[in-house]
Amino acid sequence: MNPKAMQKLGYGLYIVCSKKEDKYNGQIANTIFQVCSEPPVIAMAINRQNLTHEFIAQSKVFTGSILSQDAPLSFIGNFGFKSGRQVDKFENVHYKLGETLVPIVLDHTLAYLEAKVFNQLEVGTHTIFLGEIVEGEVVKEGDPMTYAYYHQVKRGTTPKSAPSYVEETKKVVSNTIKYKCNVCGYIYDPEKGDPDGGIKPGTPFDEISDSWACPVCGATKDMFAKMEE
Amino acid sequence: MNPKAMQKLGYGLYIVCSKKEDKYNGQIANTIFQVCSEPPVIAMAINRQNLTHEFIAQSKVFTGSILSQDAPLSFIGNFGFKSGRQVDKFENVHYKLGETLVPIVLDHTLAYLEAKVFNQLEVGTHTIFLGEIVEGEVVKEGDPMTYAYYHQVKRGTTPKSAPSYVEETKKVVSNTIKYKCNVCGYIYDPEKGDPDGGIKPGTPFDEISDSWACPVCGATKDMFAKMEE
Repeated sequence: MNPKAMQKLGYGLYIVCSKKEDKYNGQIANTIFQVCSEPPVIAMAINRQNLTHEFIAQSKVFTGSILSQDAPLSFIGNFGFKSGRQVDKFENVHYKLGETLVPIVLDHTLAYLEAKVFNQLEVGTHTIFLGEIVEGEVVKEGDPMTYAYYHQVKRGTTPKSAPSYVEETKKVVSNTIKYKCNVCGYIYDPEKGDPDGGIKPGTPFDEISDSWACPVCGATKDMFAKMEE
Repeated sequence: MNPKAMQKLGYGLYIVCSKKEDKYNGQIANTIFQVCSEPPVIAMAINRQNLTHEFIAQSKVFTGSILSQDAPLSFIGNFGFKSGRQVDKFENVHYKLGETLVPIVLDHTLAYLEAKVFNQLEVGTHTIFLGEIVEGEVVKEGDPMTYAYYHQVKRGTTPKSAPSYVEETKKVVSNTIKYKCNVCGYIYDPEKGDPDGGIKPGTPFDEISDSWACPVCGATKDMFAKMEE
């Protein structure tokens, strides 16, 4: 089986939130689909090691915010490459509470869905939660972020806990030296720079200011390692 | 709940095939996602009324061909708006048999997956099949078709049996008169024409040749009804 075949499957990109007593958590997910219309039901796969999984398994409620294509990497990285066990992901994030009292992230969100879990199925490392939609609204118009866009255009990376994680294979390296973030796997490519972070294309890694941080996970510059050519 | 919120979820577009004894069938699906990597498992939702559902439920094997963005509407319509109970969908289609002896459609296909069902869950009108991948290969490079692209750019429609089907709401109508296909719901818009079918933008419906057929489902011109303004 060629694992690249699976990578052609199409997905959106979502922030899935839940709660446990008075604590909130959220994470990035790409695996939500609608199962049927009557009643409106969605299925979602989440890694059992994630804190959000623990919260959903206990509270049986979750929300999903459908991200806009213009969501910046740093915003996605906050939910995708940090653990709610260490940080409060909702600091500096605009959200409201749904009718199940679970936070609904509103930043960079086109629409949201709120669901009550009525069934779940453990499959390998993940659980598929089946949620009946209790509320859903469009927040603004725009193009939804797709998982392909996140990878190809935004050059985002995939955490090890994701359903679609595969070991990064060695890539063809150009003459300019690339550096890889040891936290999330993001690769700084001098040819492309990091325009969102104020780094122009053509800037060698050594010339970037020490205050610069990984655009995906926020790791400091010293967390980057030179890649072998 | 605003049903438009659900429509922002992101999907690819696939031809899912299965078999029953020596008979083959296939249909369009947009609901496949990867659940985990070890072992490689995908989940897929299919309407229980569909012939392909009957075949998968019995044979416990299916294939999924991941469509390219350049797949024409007529090709999608053959699998999406016709029933294998009435027609042989594989006539004039290029396919091969996988190791489970299920057909794998190769036309307009970027990659394919072949799966053995090890669990299934009935949810409302649909069944979620969980399949362990036994084979998968990339056929060619290209951009995968997304469900959004199919709707927005190709102007494709959604059959009533799909998870995401909603009643078409009345749309803002321009001065030019649109016609709707009674079979599949495709709307002919004179402003856009049907370039794939040789009808230039700006062509009124009345001026189209009687030999023209619906680009989605192949229905003849007399199956179209004038839309109210």
